Amino acid sequence: MSRAYNFSAGPATLPEPVLLQAQAEMLDWHGVGASIVELSHRGPEFMQVAQEAEADLRTLMAIPDDYAVLFLQGGATTQQALIALNFANPGQTADYVITGHWGKTALKQVKPYVNAQIVANGEGGGFRDIPARSEWKLSDDAAYVHYTANETIHGVEFRDIPDVGGVPLFADFSSSIAAEPLDVSKFGLIYAGAQKNLGPVGVAVVIVRRDLLERAGQPRAEILDYRAHVKGESMLNTPPTWNWYLAGLVFKWMIREGGVAEFARRNARKAALLYDVIDGSGGFYRNEVATTARSRMNVPFFLRDDALDKPFLKEAEAAGLISLKGHRALGGMRASIYNAMPEAGVQALASFMRDFQQRNG
Amino acid sequence: MSRAYNFSAGPATLPEPVLLQAQAEMLDWHGVGASIVELSHRGPEFMQVAQEAEADLRTLMAIPDDYAVLFLQGGATTQQALIALNFANPGQTADYVITGHWGKTALKQVKPYVNAQIVANGEGGGFRDIPARSEWKLSDDAAYVHYTANETIHGVEFRDIPDVGGVPLFADFSSSIAAEPLDVSKFGLIYAGAQKNLGPVGVAVVIVRRDLLERAGQPRAEILDYRAHVKGESMLNTPPTWNWYLAGLVFKWMIREGGVAEFARRNARKAALLYDVIDGSGGFYRNEVATTARSRMNVPFFLRDDALDKPFLKEAEAAGLISLKGHRALGGMRASIYNAMPEAGVQALASFMRDFQQRNG
Repeated sequence: MSRAYNFSAGPATLPEPVLLQAQAEMLDWHGVGASIVELSHRGPEFMQVAQEAEADLRTLMAIPDDYAVLFLQGGATTQQALIALNFANPGQTADYVITGHWGKTALKQVKPYVNAQIVANGEGGGFRDIPARSEWKLSDDAAYVHYTANETIHGVEFRDIPDVGGVPLFADFSSSIAAEPLDVSKFGLIYAGAQKNLGPVGVAVVIVRRDLLERAGQPRAEILDYRAHVKGESMLNTPPTWNWYLAGLVFKWMIREGGVAEFARRNARKAALLYDVIDGSGGFYRNEVATTARSRMNVPFFLRDDALDKPFLKEAEAAGLISLKGHRALGGMRASIYNAMPEAGVQALASFMRDFQQRNG
Repeated sequence: MSRAYNFSAGPATLPEPVLLQAQAEMLDWHGVGASIVELSHRGPEFMQVAQEAEADLRTLMAIPDDYAVLFLQGGATTQQALIALNFANPGQTADYVITGHWGKTALKQVKPYVNAQIVANGEGGGFRDIPARSEWKLSDDAAYVHYTANETIHGVEFRDIPDVGGVPLFADFSSSIAAEPLDVSKFGLIYAGAQKNLGPVGVAVVIVRRDLLERAGQPRAEILDYRAHVKGESMLNTPPTWNWYLAGLVFKWMIREGGVAEFARRNARKAALLYDVIDGSGGFYRNEVATTARSRMNVPFFLRDDALDKPFLKEAEAAGLISLKGHRALGGMRASIYNAMPEAGVQALASFMRDFQQRNG
């Protein structure tokens, strides 16, 4: 067995200690004679796993008590539909800030339910920067303002929480949740697919201010109702227990490693290392995002000569650096360097990039 | 490590060879240097896993080509809401046959969307039998007829496919899918949470006749649209890759073991063994379901003296027989004996039951 450094954008690399523990417990969780994936979600074993996961995430992110935390299926995309169904009246205005591909996805999901207004849009500039807050044209009566904290494909990240006055701020944090300390109290709702920064695919986290749950929203099935999920403690139906368990192991690993403050320091160092190689390459490598909006999580970059793309990927793989191919929408390369990517992996990539340039520049 | 015989109703026991393979591949899938749970769902590795899983399920269940197969999140309950959104006009009539708890859940999910008619209901008889087909009062203009093939809590199972004429037949097969050969062509749609008879929690299977996808249905987000999921090959958003992978391993195991015809024989023997102990106990154990409607998958039973419930559970656990406590709605005991429960496990339970009666009868 030899582990590569895996720069996949999500599903993404997991901490090796987490995988080792899941492996050790695969046939027998804590001596009960069965895997945790084989036990009832309502039994004492999984209830313990679930409760610890929520408590640990609350600790990690300093989530205030007046916020509910949900562990749900359906990924971030399902939450994008549910936020309109749950928190906006039929046809009510909802404001959307678009800074990349995922903002557009969020907008698409709510079209049948609300009067979605694009109040700021980075598409004209090729999603290489975040429109200045002063230029946003917020609606007077919006149910909420939605933005994407980190755009995984375009590598564009908000570095501050935008001030939108009294309107609840909703944010897709799929690819940057728990990457640094965050003032959760500034938000009405935060959601994230877990498969990037929290580890396992197949479970999404929703953090919602409880008073918002009193909104009537729109006619919907119980299974599409956040209030029912809160009441059912994320067990309205059988939850994805395995994925929830794996997320819990990641939370415990993050706490052991020093929490989000420590990951913020590591993530800053990792991102700086790659952007320095790119910016110092004299144009051999290129990242076109405005410096102030560059993502610490996803570093997309292009080779000056795209005929070198294939050799780059092939040689990187031979050097144990995998999943560096860029998203099909943009081409080029992308290094995703979430919490679970060790600094040694980024150092190895930086060295490889310098070496590849020397041999091909 | 010692494995118990785990009679959990779902999440439920998995085949040991599947767990062993998942354990062996946990840190490095087929030499790529990463776990399958860490790789992109759009990469060649997972695409292979996904395609093989679908092909294997099609082989196992002899699914005709004019049916699409989806692997989705949200469990069976989400599908219960989506069938109305996708296949009925707003307020259109849909017919529901209720033979237990899960039929009632299915009905509840569609209330906001359709004029749901209960065309047959076993509740008056305590859900101990299936209302005769001749007594069903089908609507003239129903979008579909829905029933629950096996009621996990009440232990009531349809042994034949009901004839509903030209109206598409929709069925929840969560707890009996692939338990015996089934003529899929009799159905418009079959859905099942995988965590009972197909193995892993966190993924649901939907088998839908393609022509039904042309129905307009109701306004809905793309992520709630089966047509979009079919077009996106179940990858409209990031799918639960780990769970899908584990299901795929279970399908391969089932094919190796002889396919559904072989499991039908084993399941018949396993169920007969337990019902024989119950019926031969002179009332010490009791199952109240009509013989013709008894489930081969879930065997609920009661002890004549419920003061013996706790000792029964405690001694069973000491004997390596776990998760036998009945659902809180019914009390008593329940032995769930899905495909992955070996005959040796059921034989051990039958012996224990006889022995327990001898000591306490």
